[in-house]
Amino acid sequence: MPDTVPQSVLDALRDVVGRKGWIDDEAGMEPHLVERRSLWRGTCAAVVRPASTEETARVIEICAAARVPVTPQGGNTGGVGGGVPEGGIVLSAARMNHIRAVDPLNHTMTVEGGCVLATIQEAANEVGCLFPLSLAAEGSCQIGGNLSTNAGGIQVLRYGNARDLVLGLEVVLPDGRVWDGLRSLRKNNTGYDLKHLFIGAEGTLGIITAAVLKLYPAIHAREAALVALSDPESVLDLFVRVRDACGDALTAFEMISRMPFDFALKHSVRMRDPFEAPHPFYALIELTSPRPGGALRETLQAVLARAIEDEFAKDAVIATSEAQAKELWTIREDINEAQIPEGGSIKHDVSVPISRVPEFLRRATDILERAVPGGRVIAFGHVGDGNIHFNLSQPEGADTDAFMAESNRVAHGVHDLVAEMEGSFSAEHGIGLHKRDLLKHYKSDVEMDLMWTVKRSLDAKSIMNLGKLL
Amino acid sequence: MPDTVPQSVLDALRDVVGRKGWIDDEAGMEPHLVERRSLWRGTCAAVVRPASTEETARVIEICAAARVPVTPQGGNTGGVGGGVPEGGIVLSAARMNHIRAVDPLNHTMTVEGGCVLATIQEAANEVGCLFPLSLAAEGSCQIGGNLSTNAGGIQVLRYGNARDLVLGLEVVLPDGRVWDGLRSLRKNNTGYDLKHLFIGAEGTLGIITAAVLKLYPAIHAREAALVALSDPESVLDLFVRVRDACGDALTAFEMISRMPFDFALKHSVRMRDPFEAPHPFYALIELTSPRPGGALRETLQAVLARAIEDEFAKDAVIATSEAQAKELWTIREDINEAQIPEGGSIKHDVSVPISRVPEFLRRATDILERAVPGGRVIAFGHVGDGNIHFNLSQPEGADTDAFMAESNRVAHGVHDLVAEMEGSFSAEHGIGLHKRDLLKHYKSDVEMDLMWTVKRSLDAKSIMNLGKLL
Repeated sequence: MPDTVPQSVLDALRDVVGRKGWIDDEAGMEPHLVERRSLWRGTCAAVVRPASTEETARVIEICAAARVPVTPQGGNTGGVGGGVPEGGIVLSAARMNHIRAVDPLNHTMTVEGGCVLATIQEAANEVGCLFPLSLAAEGSCQIGGNLSTNAGGIQVLRYGNARDLVLGLEVVLPDGRVWDGLRSLRKNNTGYDLKHLFIGAEGTLGIITAAVLKLYPAIHAREAALVALSDPESVLDLFVRVRDACGDALTAFEMISRMPFDFALKHSVRMRDPFEAPHPFYALIELTSPRPGGALRETLQAVLARAIEDEFAKDAVIATSEAQAKELWTIREDINEAQIPEGGSIKHDVSVPISRVPEFLRRATDILERAVPGGRVIAFGHVGDGNIHFNLSQPEGADTDAFMAESNRVAHGVHDLVAEMEGSFSAEHGIGLHKRDLLKHYKSDVEMDLMWTVKRSLDAKSIMNLGKLL
Repeated sequence: MPDTVPQSVLDALRDVVGRKGWIDDEAGMEPHLVERRSLWRGTCAAVVRPASTEETARVIEICAAARVPVTPQGGNTGGVGGGVPEGGIVLSAARMNHIRAVDPLNHTMTVEGGCVLATIQEAANEVGCLFPLSLAAEGSCQIGGNLSTNAGGIQVLRYGNARDLVLGLEVVLPDGRVWDGLRSLRKNNTGYDLKHLFIGAEGTLGIITAAVLKLYPAIHAREAALVALSDPESVLDLFVRVRDACGDALTAFEMISRMPFDFALKHSVRMRDPFEAPHPFYALIELTSPRPGGALRETLQAVLARAIEDEFAKDAVIATSEAQAKELWTIREDINEAQIPEGGSIKHDVSVPISRVPEFLRRATDILERAVPGGRVIAFGHVGDGNIHFNLSQPEGADTDAFMAESNRVAHGVHDLVAEMEGSFSAEHGIGLHKRDLLKHYKSDVEMDLMWTVKRSLDAKSIMNLGKLL
C-alpha cells in the first residue's frame, strides 16, 4: 500500500539519496516488486538506493521514526519471496558495490553488501585466492543477500555455508545506528558474537552494508568422476569411503537419481550418457587441492577401484581432462532446467543427517508415489551435506494445474517425514514469505519465542522486512 | 554472600538434585570458589550438581523465581575468572557427562555439557574419527565450558574455534525453559541461528547442557618441522608460502621468539636445540592428512628448500619419525612452564590480522622495552590465526611484586596498540571477570548496547553468571 507512506517522509528519503538513488516510476519499480519465478508480487512507495552506509543509516533512521516498513533487497534472486515488499519502501543495496580492501596475506576481503558474488570471486582470483561461495545466481546475486540468507551451494561440503565465510560485518540496525563489526580476525573472544545474529536473518534484524570475507588458497588440482550405483545405500557407502580417504580434498559429492538424469539427457543439448547401461543412481565427485602434486587422481582411482571390486559401484568414469570434467558437471547443472519441459514440479529443499539419507530417500519416495500415482520422483543434491532437492514432476500427460493444486498435500507428507527424521524443511533456501507457515508448524514454542524475543528487542519499531521469516 | 539465599530456596534446590548433587561444606565447595591461578576467590551458598537437563531446568527455574544468582561451572579451568561465583549458587555440570550418541557416518557426536574434552577426543578416536579441539586443559576441562568460552587451541588454523565445531545445542535458558536445538544437520536455514548466541557467551545467557559436535576423518599422515628465521617478516613470509602450498594440510603454524626458546632450553629437561646456532625466531609447522599417501613430506621439503634458497629461512629440520616430531613439539609445549622460574610475567592474549603480525611484533616489543627497561619480551603463539601470546617477563633479578605492579600500565600500552591495529585484546581466553574493564573501554557504545540488549531480553531476571563478560 504505497499510499501509507506520507509524502513528507518520501521527500526526506529522496533528499538523502538524491536522484540517482530514487526510483518511483512503475517501470523502474517493477523488477523490485516481483521475484524470479513471479510467484509473489508486492507493492511499495519507492525503491531507495543509498550509495553508502551513511545514507543507508539515514534512510533507516527516517523510516524508523515514521514507522515505515523497509524491505531490503540484494540481487532479488531468492526463491522464497524474502525480498517481496509489502508496502513501505524497498531498500536496494545495488549502489553499495565497492570492494573496500583485499588482503591476500590475511586471506580476507572487505566488500560492500551490494557487490555481485561473481565480482567478488573474480577479485579473489586476481590475487591468487579463492572465494568459494558459488551458486547458480552468482552473476547477479549480491553478497549482502547471500549473507542475509546464509546461502549454500555446491561447495558447502568443503568450505561451509555463507555464514562460515565471514569474519566481520557492518550492519545498519533497525533504528538507524551503525554497528561496525568489520573485524578481520580469526580469533576474537570479546563478548557475544553478534555477526551471527544478522547472518541468515533475511534482513529482519538490520541491513548488512559490508562484510569481511575469508579467502582460501587458489585451486591447482582438480579431479572429477561420475559413478554409477544401484541404490541409496551404495550412494552413502561411496560417500563415506571417499570422504574418509580424501578428507578436505573432497569439494563436492552430488547425487542424481535416474529420473533427473533421464530428464537432463532428453532436454540438454550438451549432455551425453558416459555409461552404456542405465543405472538407478549416480554420484558426481569432485576433488580439489591447492597443491598440484597431491596425488588426487591416484587417491580417487584407488577408492573407485575398491568400490567396484566390492561390487557396490557398478561403473565409473574419471575425467582425464578439464573439458571432460566440465562435461560431467553439465549433468548436474542441467537438471534444474530439464524439469521445466516435463510439466509441473513440486519442490522440496530438505536435509537430514547424512547417515539417514538412504532411509529418507526410500521413505520419501514411497510417500510421493502413494500421494500422486504416476508422479515422477526427482531426487538430487548435495548428499555430502545431507541436503536433498527432492521434487515431484507431474505424471506424463497429466493436467499441470490439477497436479500443482496438490502441492501442499504432497509437501506436507515430505515435511512430516523430515521432521520425524530430525531434518530441516529448508536446508538452503530459507523461509521468506514461502515457508513461514512451516516455521510456525515445525518449530517448538520455545524456539519461536526466542526468535521473537530477539526480533522485538532489536527491531523495536517493527519495520525490518515485515512478514518475512517470522 | 551465602546468606543472601533463603533457606527455603536451598531446600527446594536440594530436593531437586538429591544428596549426590549437593555440596555445601567448606572443603567440598573450596575448589569451586577459586580458579586455577588463585587470582580470584568467590563465595556461594552451595554447589549444585544436577544429573540431567531436567534437573538443571528445575534448578534454574527455582533460582529465577527467587532471583538467586547462578554461576555455571565446567572444569573450572579458564584463565579469566569466568567461573568464580559472587554469591548465589554454583551450578556444576560435572554429573552431566554422558556421550548420548555417536554417528560416524554423519560425522557427529552428541555429548552432554559436563563431558571432559579428552573423553570426547577418545570416543571420536574409537570410531576412527577426530574431534579436533585440543588444548592444554583437555584432561579436565568440560565441553560445556569449551563452548561457552569458544575455546581455541593449537589447531584453530585448520579446524576453527570451538564455535565452528558445533552443529546443535541444548540450552537451559535463564528462565528454566529448555531450548532443544540439538540438530545434527550441515545445512538448515530455518530462522535465526540461535546456537551462536550461547556459544562464547560465558554462561551469561543460559547453560549449555548438550551439544552435537562435528567429527573429522582421523589423521593418517603427519609431518612436523622446525624452521629458524631471522625476523618477524620472514615468519609471515614462510607462513604464507606454507599455507598456499599446503592448504588444509597445514594444521599448525606456531611462532616462538628467541627468549621463550631460551627459557624452555634452560628449564625443560626434555628439550634440546636442534640447531647449532641461535636464531631470533622459530616456526613450528605441522602438516596432517587423512590420506597416508598424500606426499606431505615432499611438499614440506620443497617449500622449506625454496625458503632456504631464497635466504629468508636460515635453517630447518623436518622430523623423520613420530618421536622426533614429538620432540619438536616439546619446545612449544614447555614454554608456559618455563616462564615461571624466570619470575613475574605480564601476559597478553592478543590477535591482529595475520598480515600485520610483523608490524605488531616490532611495535609491541618497542612499547614493552620502553615501558620496562630490561624486561624480557616473550612472543609466541598461533601466527596462522594472527593470535600472539605476548608476555613480558621481569628483568633478571628484579623485584617481582614491584614488576607486577606495573601490569596495568604495561597492558594498557599493548592493548592500545592492538586497538589501533584493529586487533583483539582477548583472542582466545575470553572476558570473564578479568577483562570486563577492557571490554567497556575498547568496544563501541553501539556494540555494548547490542550486547546488553541481548542479555536483558534473554536473562530478564538477571541471574546468569552476573559480573562476568558484561
